[in-house]
Amino acid sequence: MPEIVNWTTVRVYYEDTDFSGRVYHASYVRFLERGRTEWLRQIGLRHDILAQSETAFAVRRLEIDFRGPAFIDDALEIETTAEAIKGATLRFRQRVLRGEKILVAAETQIVTISRNRPVRPPRELLERLRRLGVDSAIDAVAERGEPQG
Amino acid sequence: MPEIVNWTTVRVYYEDTDFSGRVYHASYVRFLERGRTEWLRQIGLRHDILAQSETAFAVRRLEIDFRGPAFIDDALEIETTAEAIKGATLRFRQRVLRGEKILVAAETQIVTISRNRPVRPPRELLERLRRLGVDSAIDAVAERGEPQG
Amino acid sequence: MPEIVNWTTVRVYYEDTDFSGRVYHASYVRFLERGRTEWLRQIGLRHDILAQSETAFAVRRLEIDFRGPAFIDDALEIETTAEAIKGATLRFRQRVLRGEKILVAAETQIVTISRNRPVRPPRELLERLRRLGVDSAIDAVAERGEPQG
Amino acid sequence: MPEIVNWTTVRVYYEDTDFSGRVYHASYVRFLERGRTEWLRQIGLRHDILAQSETAFAVRRLEIDFRGPAFIDDALEIETTAEAIKGATLRFRQRVLRGEKILVAAETQIVTISRNRPVRPPRELLERLRRLGVDSAIDAVAERGEPQG
Repeated sequence: MPEIVNWTTVRVYYEDTDFSGRVYHASYVRFLERGRTEWLRQIGLRHDILAQSETAFAVRRLEIDFRGPAFIDDALEIETTAEAIKGATLRFRQRVLRGEKILVAAETQIVTISRNRPVRPPRELLERLRRLGVDSAIDAVAERGEPQG
Repeated sequence: MPEIVNWTTVRVYYEDTDFSGRVYHASYVRFLERGRTEWLRQIGLRHDILAQSETAFAVRRLEIDFRGPAFIDDALEIETTAEAIKGATLRFRQRVLRGEKILVAAETQIVTISRNRPVRPPRELLERLRRLGVDSAIDAVAERGEPQG
Repeated sequence: MPEIVNWTTVRVYYEDTDFSGRVYHASYVRFLERGRTEWLRQIGLRHDILAQSETAFAVRRLEIDFRGPAFIDDALEIETTAEAIKGATLRFRQRVLRGEKILVAAETQIVTISRNRPVRPPRELLERLRRLGVDSAIDAVAERGEPQG
Repeated sequence: MPEIVNWTTVRVYYEDTDFSGRVYHASYVRFLERGRTEWLRQIGLRHDILAQSETAFAVRRLEIDFRGPAFIDDALEIETTAEAIKGATLRFRQRVLRGEKILVAAETQIVTISRNRPVRPPRELLERLRRLGVDSAIDAVAERGEPQG
């Protein structure tokens, strides 16, 4: 499917750092989640709307390479690219950069869940993606029937 | 009412510190909440049980004095004393200590809420307190009828 | 001294909420710290610059009233007003709003510390405030000599 | 090298959950870090001691599979196994369990850093491991000379 990329800026605050003087590694995991939320908002969806149909996102798998440190007051860019939707699973490729420097590279698999069980991504999400020209992915999902999770 | 005191130990991890080398001030706010949760567990209640009757606790007011720093690997004691129940409001007096030294002193007002509205504390909580000999507080609540919130 | 007010927008993400469906109360404590950091940036200073002179801010006292809940995807405004500087202490009055609605009102006392001891606010901070027309406060500090903390 | 396994219990508090009603995925990343810190304590070391020789741990790579949800008030077990030390890198295999059920499985690579540069693990760590019977790994490190990072 055509790639839909979101760029989100994150400021490093006290809360994101640890006593080593750098950004705490789990803070990047929060930053990456913010990036995926903003990707969702970019295609016109929000978690609170999804929640009305009792749907939420859950992270299934996370791979993160930490390549360099960030520090208090840094302005970081979160680049979020949705790569594929298969069954109940969305795959994102994400990077955290300060200027040109890549600090973090990550791959994330998300499942859409309802009452703690994986379900096909909600109609709103699939419709938004269809309008953005990603019909084949949607058809693939439509044919698949049962979620993977 | 007779005071019911809970002591809970908290270890300081990387996540709790900031780049100044000390414990981040908002981490104590999380520690205090853990103390109140353990106070609740001590009298035989849990948040998941309360949630079954769609009841949750919400903090209404917080006053915290930060008197001294804590550091990575410190073992801190959270002392939690319930002072009074009035209508929908519980009042706690809390302290964070390292050994004999008081690092933080706090007063917290909690309201019990259901669907985002203050409600009388759930029957389970009032019954537990009654068994612990705090009848007068419960009667006061029973007479009050409407929640304060 | 003339009031210097900063407005900072905060988006509510997954990380800020708890299982009650609302924003976790300690998340506001982080939001308020972001507001004070942006106030500092507005007058031309940053924590990393202060750190070069081994100075950091530490919260001495915090009073927070929680008046209403916030939810996932909300855009909140953090209003931060510096009220007074006395010796080593800065006083801030802060509010968190969603539209016109005040969700949180807080008063915070900050001390500037160096090697875990309170010190007079760094020269850079006092000079910035002087240029903004707050000479009397600075003189008061200059005369005071010893920090309060 | 012989495996050194640490078991640490973690209680799920309000702070660890999100509005979906489950534990927020980044909370497990914090839990895993607590497990590694307790593994370190088990072999007789602490972050504050390492900090005296200006050494800290930094996460280089993280792979996490999220297999099932956890909820408020759950008591979780963090199982931490150190698998190998090579140059500046330690490898850990970790799991989060509730009773017999595996909720999270993770592999983590840690580097020891000093002034933001990877360095050979500190002598104290290597000596502790030697006493526990893991000489060969230490010799390999000793021969290697330059850190990998």
